[in-house]
Amino acid sequence: MNKRKIFNDPVYGFITIPFDIIYDLISHPYFQRLRRIKQLGLTDYVYPGAFHTRFHHAIGALHLMQQAIQVLRAKNVVVSDAEYEAVCIAILLHDIGHTPFSHALENTFCPYDHEVLSLKIMHVLNRVFKGKLDLAIEIFSGQYEKEFLHQLVSSQLDMDRMDYLTRDSFFTGVAEGVIGYDRIIKMLTVVEGELVVEEKGILSIERFLLSRYFMYSQVYLHRTVIAAEQMLKKFLQLSNDFNEISEKSALFKIWKGKNLEDDELIHFFAEIDDFDIISLLKKAKNSEENVLSFFADGLLNRRLFKTIYKNSPFSSDFVSQLRKNVESKFQSIENAQQLVLEGSEKNTSYIREKDEIKIFTKSNGVVRFSDLAKYVKQTDEHTLFFVCHPPFS
Amino acid sequence: MNKRKIFNDPVYGFITIPFDIIYDLISHPYFQRLRRIKQLGLTDYVYPGAFHTRFHHAIGALHLMQQAIQVLRAKNVVVSDAEYEAVCIAILLHDIGHTPFSHALENTFCPYDHEVLSLKIMHVLNRVFKGKLDLAIEIFSGQYEKEFLHQLVSSQLDMDRMDYLTRDSFFTGVAEGVIGYDRIIKMLTVVEGELVVEEKGILSIERFLLSRYFMYSQVYLHRTVIAAEQMLKKFLQLSNDFNEISEKSALFKIWKGKNLEDDELIHFFAEIDDFDIISLLKKAKNSEENVLSFFADGLLNRRLFKTIYKNSPFSSDFVSQLRKNVESKFQSIENAQQLVLEGSEKNTSYIREKDEIKIFTKSNGVVRFSDLAKYVKQTDEHTLFFVCHPPFS
Amino acid sequence: MNKRKIFNDPVYGFITIPFDIIYDLISHPYFQRLRRIKQLGLTDYVYPGAFHTRFHHAIGALHLMQQAIQVLRAKNVVVSDAEYEAVCIAILLHDIGHTPFSHALENTFCPYDHEVLSLKIMHVLNRVFKGKLDLAIEIFSGQYEKEFLHQLVSSQLDMDRMDYLTRDSFFTGVAEGVIGYDRIIKMLTVVEGELVVEEKGILSIERFLLSRYFMYSQVYLHRTVIAAEQMLKKFLQLSNDFNEISEKSALFKIWKGKNLEDDELIHFFAEIDDFDIISLLKKAKNSEENVLSFFADGLLNRRLFKTIYKNSPFSSDFVSQLRKNVESKFQSIENAQQLVLEGSEKNTSYIREKDEIKIFTKSNGVVRFSDLAKYVKQTDEHTLFFVCHPPFS
Amino acid sequence: MNKRKIFNDPVYGFITIPFDIIYDLISHPYFQRLRRIKQLGLTDYVYPGAFHTRFHHAIGALHLMQQAIQVLRAKNVVVSDAEYEAVCIAILLHDIGHTPFSHALENTFCPYDHEVLSLKIMHVLNRVFKGKLDLAIEIFSGQYEKEFLHQLVSSQLDMDRMDYLTRDSFFTGVAEGVIGYDRIIKMLTVVEGELVVEEKGILSIERFLLSRYFMYSQVYLHRTVIAAEQMLKKFLQLSNDFNEISEKSALFKIWKGKNLEDDELIHFFAEIDDFDIISLLKKAKNSEENVLSFFADGLLNRRLFKTIYKNSPFSSDFVSQLRKNVESKFQSIENAQQLVLEGSEKNTSYIREKDEIKIFTKSNGVVRFSDLAKYVKQTDEHTLFFVCHPPFS
Repeated sequence: MNKRKIFNDPVYGFITIPFDIIYDLISHPYFQRLRRIKQLGLTDYVYPGAFHTRFHHAIGALHLMQQAIQVLRAKNVVVSDAEYEAVCIAILLHDIGHTPFSHALENTFCPYDHEVLSLKIMHVLNRVFKGKLDLAIEIFSGQYEKEFLHQLVSSQLDMDRMDYLTRDSFFTGVAEGVIGYDRIIKMLTVVEGELVVEEKGILSIERFLLSRYFMYSQVYLHRTVIAAEQMLKKFLQLSNDFNEISEKSALFKIWKGKNLEDDELIHFFAEIDDFDIISLLKKAKNSEENVLSFFADGLLNRRLFKTIYKNSPFSSDFVSQLRKNVESKFQSIENAQQLVLEGSEKNTSYIREKDEIKIFTKSNGVVRFSDLAKYVKQTDEHTLFFVCHPPFS
Repeated sequence: MNKRKIFNDPVYGFITIPFDIIYDLISHPYFQRLRRIKQLGLTDYVYPGAFHTRFHHAIGALHLMQQAIQVLRAKNVVVSDAEYEAVCIAILLHDIGHTPFSHALENTFCPYDHEVLSLKIMHVLNRVFKGKLDLAIEIFSGQYEKEFLHQLVSSQLDMDRMDYLTRDSFFTGVAEGVIGYDRIIKMLTVVEGELVVEEKGILSIERFLLSRYFMYSQVYLHRTVIAAEQMLKKFLQLSNDFNEISEKSALFKIWKGKNLEDDELIHFFAEIDDFDIISLLKKAKNSEENVLSFFADGLLNRRLFKTIYKNSPFSSDFVSQLRKNVESKFQSIENAQQLVLEGSEKNTSYIREKDEIKIFTKSNGVVRFSDLAKYVKQTDEHTLFFVCHPPFS
Repeated sequence: MNKRKIFNDPVYGFITIPFDIIYDLISHPYFQRLRRIKQLGLTDYVYPGAFHTRFHHAIGALHLMQQAIQVLRAKNVVVSDAEYEAVCIAILLHDIGHTPFSHALENTFCPYDHEVLSLKIMHVLNRVFKGKLDLAIEIFSGQYEKEFLHQLVSSQLDMDRMDYLTRDSFFTGVAEGVIGYDRIIKMLTVVEGELVVEEKGILSIERFLLSRYFMYSQVYLHRTVIAAEQMLKKFLQLSNDFNEISEKSALFKIWKGKNLEDDELIHFFAEIDDFDIISLLKKAKNSEENVLSFFADGLLNRRLFKTIYKNSPFSSDFVSQLRKNVESKFQSIENAQQLVLEGSEKNTSYIREKDEIKIFTKSNGVVRFSDLAKYVKQTDEHTLFFVCHPPFS
Repeated sequence: MNKRKIFNDPVYGFITIPFDIIYDLISHPYFQRLRRIKQLGLTDYVYPGAFHTRFHHAIGALHLMQQAIQVLRAKNVVVSDAEYEAVCIAILLHDIGHTPFSHALENTFCPYDHEVLSLKIMHVLNRVFKGKLDLAIEIFSGQYEKEFLHQLVSSQLDMDRMDYLTRDSFFTGVAEGVIGYDRIIKMLTVVEGELVVEEKGILSIERFLLSRYFMYSQVYLHRTVIAAEQMLKKFLQLSNDFNEISEKSALFKIWKGKNLEDDELIHFFAEIDDFDIISLLKKAKNSEENVLSFFADGLLNRRLFKTIYKNSPFSSDFVSQLRKNVESKFQSIENAQQLVLEGSEKNTSYIREKDEIKIFTKSNGVVRFSDLAKYVKQTDEHTLFFVCHPPFS
């Protein structure tokens, strides 16, 4: 059977599958599940094109990895065929541990980051594939001697980032998020085992960081997206606590009380996707529990909460006053104070000295990016504090 | 409240909302539901980018309608503001009656075409909006005196088609499906009340028909897409007959036995979307009913059937031999002969003399397109007969 | 010196130079001259973006050749590195023999087609490069044993065509001319030494032929472009005959009376480009010779002639009446009858049985394209007869 | 005659002509001349796609102006039809005073900036068009009461800049230069008569400034482009001083010694375009004057000088040593020290407090951009000092 299939991709055109094992991994139910996990969670409430999935993104990152390896090899960086295959596997599976709606629900119920879960799943798959993922796992977990291979999978300039910024800006239609992924990849090289960028790529990196910051401001942390996410989180929290929805509670048991080490639990985990969450909403919409149905109706029919935010925490006075106002406005709803949702969100930004990008200069060898950049030496990390509440009018 | 919002659309860039009522209609749950109905059913099994929804498509068609009206007005075709609003409403709602997975499940359970359901829902909404949809309904149902307005909504060159071909080729990444929608729209004009194309647009129309034919051959009737659709249809048919899945059976009762005239039924109808269907699959996957779980597992994990097809019906000998082979190969499955799925599918093509495109020529006035076209005077309507079965290896 | 440079190309993104000799050939004055020869002659009068040059096109075709060879190698077609280099040289130089304004002036003054001149120049360059072009010349002139290499350079589906249709539609902004070059290239393979297309590519070929026909109708044979070309041809013819412009007449002597065999003449030939022609116009604009200055002024200031055309020759009565009308309207111009320009132009189309495209089918092996195509089995070859004249108002 | 023509533009698709007078102005020889003046001078030596002309750019800026006026009108900014027409005329003609090769030769021979020449030509055209350009001239020269109309033509966020950055990045293929022109235009509004940007557009402006800076670094001040420009300037300077080329010297007389006030001189000026300069090169290439022919050959055959540059002036010792080296290497060339070209170039950047961009905030009204921007508050203005010399190997 010919496994060197071609995917049509709206972003890059044709994407080829470079190794048979890649085809087999894509065919595995754990990977197929990514078809049912949206890349950007609830972002399509604001950017209706943002319906792409983790499946998409993983294939896209695989495509860029092929380009990157070809660029490096053309610069006489040695990458054996076994390493090439392994780094392709690593990037393909880097997000396989995402919970439903990706980051929107990450860390809410599950104590682990998605990377930890991805690694656990890779170990399970390695047993299925009889050790063929050994090297990929070494690379993914940063234990392989050639550090640059790990950096292609996970670093400030990894193929993950290159694809998701490109893809997210494509599907949201936010042109300002477009990065010059092809030029950056052309500028990559390896010096003393590390992935570095050629000097003439500095401005491209600055623009890349600004574009990424733009995406955080305008898309990932959009106030309406935050409102939707908060509503969904609160909904799940309540629906679990109150055990209103019994049949699906296994889902939450897995997430909550138990340890995920063993294969069986991963198996349960892999059954859960966006569709289970939406089903909960659809079921709850007509329930008698007022708060739950209020959230469910709002999420299904896009009656989303308003978000107030600022750069410092809200005073408890402010929040309790808001709670009172909501209670008085929504008297028919029991426990209406639960409709006020408080939280904070930190943008993931590029900070100097933390996993710093390295630049290869002709005159001074490898230099830190922030010593050379002109405008965007780093991007601010800031915490956004917010309160979400139902609209009063 | 400012209702003149802007949508970011990956296909056209910015889309503006031209009237307040359009904003209100978009906000209605019946329209929001379209966010949960994929435009191309199960096509993303083959073209993974094809995740766009009917919501998307409706907004896109609205955008093209605005362009078309501006073109016509610039050619001194009289379109009043009321008519402009009405034709925008009509195109916005033209697909609101789609059942889950759009055409994939159309006519399977429900005796009505989606256009009929769209009209029924428009009547319901008209009551909600206190008669403000009167003119839109007249235009949609072809009863308004200015026929060209109806033709912009529904004809060989309507804005529905312009958008769906553009959008489907964009998201599938099938470049050959790209039509020159902007040039065709620029060539539209009205002669004696009818929508016609200027003479110099003939080749654009030929290319448009060929692109459409291409989309049918390569996308809409792709053999793997057909296999998935057949599997899903059979699954639903069985899950209903056998009442294995009781809780959701209301869904099928609505579709099957009852009349859809009254508002309450439309209300139930509007609750059902793609997520309900996928939920059925997820539930059935681990059931003990072999055939059902076989279909469910196949659909969820992309273990899709093979399709054999030809241009004439299969002999009953051929099919019963295939059934026997399947039974012998899948002995552990009870009623394994149900795994052989027979059917036929007709491409929707452009046939001369049926809703013929009209061309406005300087020398001879309005002439039929097929009298002037050079290569693609019409596209073949053919019936594809197929049998789908699980792979033997 | 590193010769593996990268070009930025608006059409394809980055284009890499695959061999050192390609860099050296590009650097040669004969190739640099192509920077001063527009791809589409006078077409920018109608499509103002059409300013791209033969330099561009040659680099673009080189890019597609690299893709094609990679596709074929991946299908286990044997192409040695020497053959790869040679076929790249052949495509790079395939248009090096173009006279100014490319096809607009081809065959007007010079008795040779541009392919003949390209071959002559390749022989000259082969002496410069000490025989390194031997294999490229064999391939270009169809004498090499592996016929498919020649077909990649010159046939119905060569990389020349793939690039020029893609590039011309890109720069003119004529979306209908867009062909799916990448899909067609992916469908190429070699059977019994010949370049063929896989069965599933048939519709892509049909669409390609229709797009090409579209470009001929709307761009290459646009009536205003024809008028400009006729004006320029007549201008050159007269300016030579009357020896009004003496200093440049060497140019025409080369073209007219002499044999182009020897290197010295090629050297002179290679000095002439678009700029020499425009200089003649600028000089003639203010001359006292009325007809010449009339043409020159018209061409420089875009006061272009009207074109009347039909599918059969014009009667001599019609033309002589038109001449009289022109003489009476332009009484101040001596020999005003010369302002009526008669001619004919044939579109280059795809005719079955003449260099027929071959399709590789699973069931029947290699089959002729026209036996399988559905709509566009061939495109019409027709002769357009036209008369151009100055506008009367 | 219908003057509402449509242009095909590779960048924006279709561009419409909004007023009859725009058609007439485009048809005038002074405007048609822009077809023969490349937008980016000699940049195509490095970016071979950069063949677009000032004609193109002017039409493109006209297109964006139409979009901007529609956006402002939709925000209830009053723009009368007469003002609309006038501001379209102003943007159409804003670059009509460019000398050949645009900025490459600006201020070399001619004592005036191109804006001054544009205004002079607009006055001439105003007499031709009998005063119909009165308002356009007022707007262009900043004397009209509605300042924002002038700002749309000439300011930090004018339609000139929006188009040239978009167009130059498109044709050079430098993706990093892409600005989000459509989003910026959507964010424009008018407060107290001034053009301002809505608050949510701040990041778009930052990215716009960074993209612009990128274009300066990578394209406009590319070292090879600078070398070519210096060669051409020196060539022209010498060819004039030494009167080697007599016939064309009228060109330089106009530029040099005389006053350009009167119409006749403008008439001569308007005769000169890129083609005259290239003709000089072609003529000089085979001349006996060594230095001139050296430059001419280098420019025609892309044997370009090397550029050494830094941020402070070169010591005279360094330059004289370089002169000596060049003289000793090129002994056969008389006056070979003239082959060392010294100069400096300043990037045009965005400096705070000079024509500062204004932001309209909900909380504080109109605020200076640099008070709100996060990363790119301004871009550095720096002077690049360089020496160009022929390659030694």
